[in-house]
Order: sequence, then C-alpha cells, then structure tokens
Amino acid sequence: MASAEFWYEFASTYSYPAALRVGALADERGVSLVWRPFLLGPIFMAQGWRDSPFNIYPAKGRYMWRDLERTCGAMGVPLKRPEPFPQPSLLAARVALALEDPERSDFSRRVFVAEFGQGLPIGERATLSALLEECGVESIPTFERAQGHANKARLKAECARAAEIGIIGAPCLVTADGEVFWGNDRLEQGLDWAAGAGGAA
Amino acid sequence: MASAEFWYEFASTYSYPAALRVGALADERGVSLVWRPFLLGPIFMAQGWRDSPFNIYPAKGRYMWRDLERTCGAMGVPLKRPEPFPQPSLLAARVALALEDPERSDFSRRVFVAEFGQGLPIGERATLSALLEECGVESIPTFERAQGHANKARLKAECARAAEIGIIGAPCLVTADGEVFWGNDRLEQGLDWAAGAGGAA
Repeated sequence: MASAEFWYEFASTYSYPAALRVGALADERGVSLVWRPFLLGPIFMAQGWRDSPFNIYPAKGRYMWRDLERTCGAMGVPLKRPEPFPQPSLLAARVALALEDPERSDFSRRVFVAEFGQGLPIGERATLSALLEECGVESIPTFERAQGHANKARLKAECARAAEIGIIGAPCLVTADGEVFWGNDRLEQGLDWAAGAGGAA
Repeated sequence: MASAEFWYEFASTYSYPAALRVGALADERGVSLVWRPFLLGPIFMAQGWRDSPFNIYPAKGRYMWRDLERTCGAMGVPLKRPEPFPQPSLLAARVALALEDPERSDFSRRVFVAEFGQGLPIGERATLSALLEECGVESIPTFERAQGHANKARLKAECARAAEIGIIGAPCLVTADGEVFWGNDRLEQGLDWAAGAGGAA
C-alpha cells in the first residue's frame, strides 16, 4: 500500500484545516498516513526568526488570517484566533508523539479544533487532559510517558529529521521517494504523488 | 461583467505558471482581467529584505525550485532557471505598463516564457525588443514611452497601490471587493470569488 507522512505543528495555522482534511483525502487515494508531529521553532530559529513569521511580518500575518478565514469558511469549520498566537505547542507535540494511531491522529485533530476552532489554550495541561479523555485515553500515564526522557529525545530527533528532509514550514506531506509538499493547499498533489509515482511502502 | 486584477512581477517564479494559466481560467468563469505589472522590490525592502527571500533563506529557495519544477512538469511547460536569480525586472515592468491589452498580456506571457522557460536575460533591452516584435509592437517608440517620466511615475504609483491593498508577494489576484489571493495556487479560488461573491465591474 502506498504511504505518506503528514508532518504537522500544533502552533501552525494551516495545519488546522490540513489535519481535518488529510485523512479522507488519503483514504480516497488508498494512501496510508503516518502522522508526524514536530516543532517549527528550531527550523525558524535556524533562519533567524525568534517568533512566527506571521508576527514578525505584520502584512504577511494579516494576509494569512484572512486567507485562513476564507479557507475555513469554504470548509464550513469555525475559526477563532487563539491568544496569544502562536500557542505554546511543545506539550501537545510530546503527548501526540507518545500516542500510537488511531489515538494520535484523533487527539491531534481535537487539539487543532480546540485551538483554532474554539480558541482554547492548548499549552495548558488541563486542555490536553480533557481532549485525551475524549479520545478514551487515560491522561495521567500518557503525560508521564510524554514527559519522559525517551519521548522528549524522540521529539528532538523528529525535529532534526524535519530539517534534514527540507521541511521549512507546516503542514508538509512527505512521500516515500522523498518529495516534500508544503501547505494545506498541496495535500491533494502530495497524496496523488504518493499514490502514483513512488510512495510504495 | 465580473472583473479581477492580476498583479504580477517579472522576477517572480510563481508568476510564470500563473501568467500562462490565468487567461483561460478567467475566460472559463466569464471574468475580465486587468493585467497589473508591479515590482516586489519596494515591498521586500519594507520587510527588511534586500534580496529575494528565496536567496536569503536557502532552504526556502531549494523548496521553491523543486515545487516549481513539479508545477511546470504537471503543466507540461519548460523550466530553466535564469542566472542570476532574480532577474532585473524594472525595464520589463515599465514596458508592460506602457502597453495596453491585448499587447500587455501577450508581451508579459512572452517575457515569462523567455525568462523561466528559456533562461534568457530579461533585464536586457535586446531580449525585450525581440519579444515586442513578436507581439507586432514597434520596439523603439515603446521603449521611449516606457522610459518616459509619466510611465515611470505610473509604475511607482502601481507599486504603492500594491502595498496599500496588502500585496505581499506575487502573483496576486485582487477582486473588485478588495480580496487578495496570493499565489499561483490561489488563481482558481480568486477567480471563483470574482465570478460569484462581488467582483461585478
């Protein structure tokens, strides 16, 4: 079966619609997905950015929020800008990585909906706890695993891997033959590529 | 008739496939297009960039060239990276602005094909002269008009207008109700918007 990796960052605005769309798009094409949460922070730091480029460049930020509003409007999903933006996403990324599918993708979608659909603070343990319970996952042992040394190191390795394969933003679709497709607007193209040229697992 | 503005920059890579696609996409939707050449330089300078962000951020540049390769491949059009990149685009922008449609759009498409399809130096008068002749336009009086005070001032005003309406990159589709759609991958969405919600001339 063809496969592809879905790389996402919980603080990333366009990862929100992408996380809601990618599962069905992959199913339609018979592509199996690996959900790979990571952090953009180290990648931005390497470019000299100590904040989201949408904050550093206000005109870019204004454009992005309006574009996202149109995207969410067309999908019929709510958009509520979280304060502050970007939200601290480290804990959520660790928790997602500590889960296996289908819990990982289920939890991840719920984090995005809480954050960008309802404006909830996803940096807070209480928010994530409630979402874990909704997934039918016990939160206390999950947080323990998420905050353990092994899982922290694993997330660091994921971030290093993202930089290595040329990921410069989120979300990205990465195919088995190493193609990187960046953006919510590249999901279809990336999954078509995975299903057709290369991408065999 | 519904209308939309197509803002483009001759040095911009994604303006190349967009310029080749936008006419047919607009026709299909019954949208009349105004071709508006401008310069990104002043907009980039305002963000502190003295070069193309694709050069300033090499990882972003590598991604863009590969993405553009895939885009051109899917369209069946050639891609040849011009040296240097970006090409000086001031003269081409002035010439395009000095023309009226249909010559302006015809000339503009030819400039993009010469630059990114054949790798020709579009900053050189001889290159542009040959393209003007292909359009059936006399080049000597056109260059005179293009380099005249009135046309230079008009291009400056176009650049100021671009910044004012929130253009942060090229190409952009701008609808009559003031929506800005940035990118070759937003042409369909922008033209749908122009044809449907707002956009009446």
